[in-house]
Amino acid sequence: MSSGQIRTGNISTASPAAAASATEIAAMSRAVELAARGAGTVLPNPVVGCVLLDQHGAVIGEGWHQQAGGAHAEVNALNQAGERARGATAVVTLEPCNHQGRTGPCSLALINAGVARVVIAVLDPNPAAVGGVATLQKAGVEVVTGVQEKEASDVNRVWLGVLATQRPYVSFKAGTTVDGRVAAVDGTSKWITSPASRGDVHRLRSEVDTMLVGVGTVLADDPMLTVRHPDGSLAMRQPLRVIADSLGQTPASAKILGDEAPTWVATTADVGAGSDGRLSLPLLMAKLYGFGRRHVLLEGGPRLAAAMLDAGLMDEIIFYIAPLALGAGKNAIDGGSVNTLAQGHRLELRDVTTFDADVRLRYTVRRD
Amino acid sequence: MSSGQIRTGNISTASPAAAASATEIAAMSRAVELAARGAGTVLPNPVVGCVLLDQHGAVIGEGWHQQAGGAHAEVNALNQAGERARGATAVVTLEPCNHQGRTGPCSLALINAGVARVVIAVLDPNPAAVGGVATLQKAGVEVVTGVQEKEASDVNRVWLGVLATQRPYVSFKAGTTVDGRVAAVDGTSKWITSPASRGDVHRLRSEVDTMLVGVGTVLADDPMLTVRHPDGSLAMRQPLRVIADSLGQTPASAKILGDEAPTWVATTADVGAGSDGRLSLPLLMAKLYGFGRRHVLLEGGPRLAAAMLDAGLMDEIIFYIAPLALGAGKNAIDGGSVNTLAQGHRLELRDVTTFDADVRLRYTVRRD
Repeated sequence: MSSGQIRTGNISTASPAAAASATEIAAMSRAVELAARGAGTVLPNPVVGCVLLDQHGAVIGEGWHQQAGGAHAEVNALNQAGERARGATAVVTLEPCNHQGRTGPCSLALINAGVARVVIAVLDPNPAAVGGVATLQKAGVEVVTGVQEKEASDVNRVWLGVLATQRPYVSFKAGTTVDGRVAAVDGTSKWITSPASRGDVHRLRSEVDTMLVGVGTVLADDPMLTVRHPDGSLAMRQPLRVIADSLGQTPASAKILGDEAPTWVATTADVGAGSDGRLSLPLLMAKLYGFGRRHVLLEGGPRLAAAMLDAGLMDEIIFYIAPLALGAGKNAIDGGSVNTLAQGHRLELRDVTTFDADVRLRYTVRRD
Repeated sequence: MSSGQIRTGNISTASPAAAASATEIAAMSRAVELAARGAGTVLPNPVVGCVLLDQHGAVIGEGWHQQAGGAHAEVNALNQAGERARGATAVVTLEPCNHQGRTGPCSLALINAGVARVVIAVLDPNPAAVGGVATLQKAGVEVVTGVQEKEASDVNRVWLGVLATQRPYVSFKAGTTVDGRVAAVDGTSKWITSPASRGDVHRLRSEVDTMLVGVGTVLADDPMLTVRHPDGSLAMRQPLRVIADSLGQTPASAKILGDEAPTWVATTADVGAGSDGRLSLPLLMAKLYGFGRRHVLLEGGPRLAAAMLDAGLMDEIIFYIAPLALGAGKNAIDGGSVNTLAQGHRLELRDVTTFDADVRLRYTVRRD
């Protein structure tokens, strides 16, 4: 994550008076919530949320970046506040952009609206966008940065991760038993997790642009890998389905080849081989990045997950742990080069949430 | 758990006026907290907590059962309240006892103190103790039962479980990676979990009277299995250490044989054999019960855990999940007869707590 790698060179030293107030900190938490609403629809852009406060700390405008090409969070909030924005404080999860993209620079929009103070969580590490803070300060706007930075970095982890790695952000999701199994000895795995967890998986899928699965899982489970609404109907927007299939063994009858969504059977011939002669996972990620893909949800199987983790291509792990113990069967992650404890892949716990009797644990993979 | 198996035959139908108030419900939660303080030191007795409220709902006495042979929770609370107990409400986690044991019957103590109303969480399923409610009601005391019953059953799960099964209550504890491993390929396992988790394990150990480990774990890890204070010093009270060791392979140099605590090397010759010729686990539990042991903390290894689970001898699972992924190594539970998902051992989630970056999940094993 980029959360610890914030530029500070062009920022004036904050005076004690400039520190964020409790009201502003609470408004930033709200702005993070707003930002999260853009997950999936703003790719390849960052998610951004903005709350405008008047001089008494009352909320006079809220906005978030809703879809790529649409208005930015700050502009949506300014439109809501109208004339009341004069003298207001803008609380925004990401440094306001300073460049003319498909929309005008937000730094200027804030200045023109008469905003007096801007409270920022995360500075924009994107070289094309920097300068928002400097522009604001030059115009006499008071700026505070680094407020609720961890939360705001986490909500924007996909965009920040892609910027840092220049490949799609990869989230690995699995439904496991308490003893770490994703299937019983005979291969049965439907359903380990609760309906509430499976509903959350459809929400996860709705927030990515790509789903990846190994051919072994296609052969064993014949998944459809679609995004569905709670009533079972297909969502309008479906991510690309990708099968890591070195030798092209996906049967023509596989459900994943159905016309509910586009599917790419990625073979060694398409992508290129690694040193083991199998499909190169770094090349696969590079191809997907070249196609404009920014967020891959890896849905198994265990050997592909181990290979992705080992190759440094996994960013996030999301496990739904069901109240069940098997004692045998497939592990969620199976394989890789770890021989001794000190070589283990270190993770950072981000979130613990229950879904009925299941516990969802979300981790990011540590790079430090 | 016995939580769903409450006697109701001898209880008057509660009138709407007799339902517990919000103040009483809060007092019961406090009483459950007080009860928990007796864990480990009251065995073979139940843990019990009691809060006395005056007519305005103010707390005038608190008590808990502190150690076997000592005063009961109600008596401790009455002593604190003194004369103010007249007309008061007693909120107690377990039906007051009605028999003359090492202490007098609590039902009479409450009546003699002039308590006007008794709010109870769990009825006593022990045939030797029943009748507390009837005695109270005959004396004109208003009685409400079933208040915060789930919490109060959970805090007393060891005692209730032992009553229901007539064998020691068995808690299985393990420190695992996110992918369910308790050791890497080369056997290294120190330390998967955080210091905070390991501190909690010493608290767990301090609450049991017996620790059980397989000889494989003794040979692989050479654990000492002692209870230590946070400063590393030995606790005064040490549980019995038991090694499941069919053939008597524990080496004389094993740390677990040190004189910090008593140890029993349980062999097939001592205990008797099962149909597989190995140490019979049901007979082992019967022996321990005969020795007066009521709470066993199973500390591994994976094959013993699977065998205990398969034999229906595991009541509780406590996993500390560390922020680490290995992809290979020993699973926390390895073996047993489960072949297909529908045969899996069903658990009930009881608690989720974080210890630094570790997540502790606590489950009870379902019998329904």
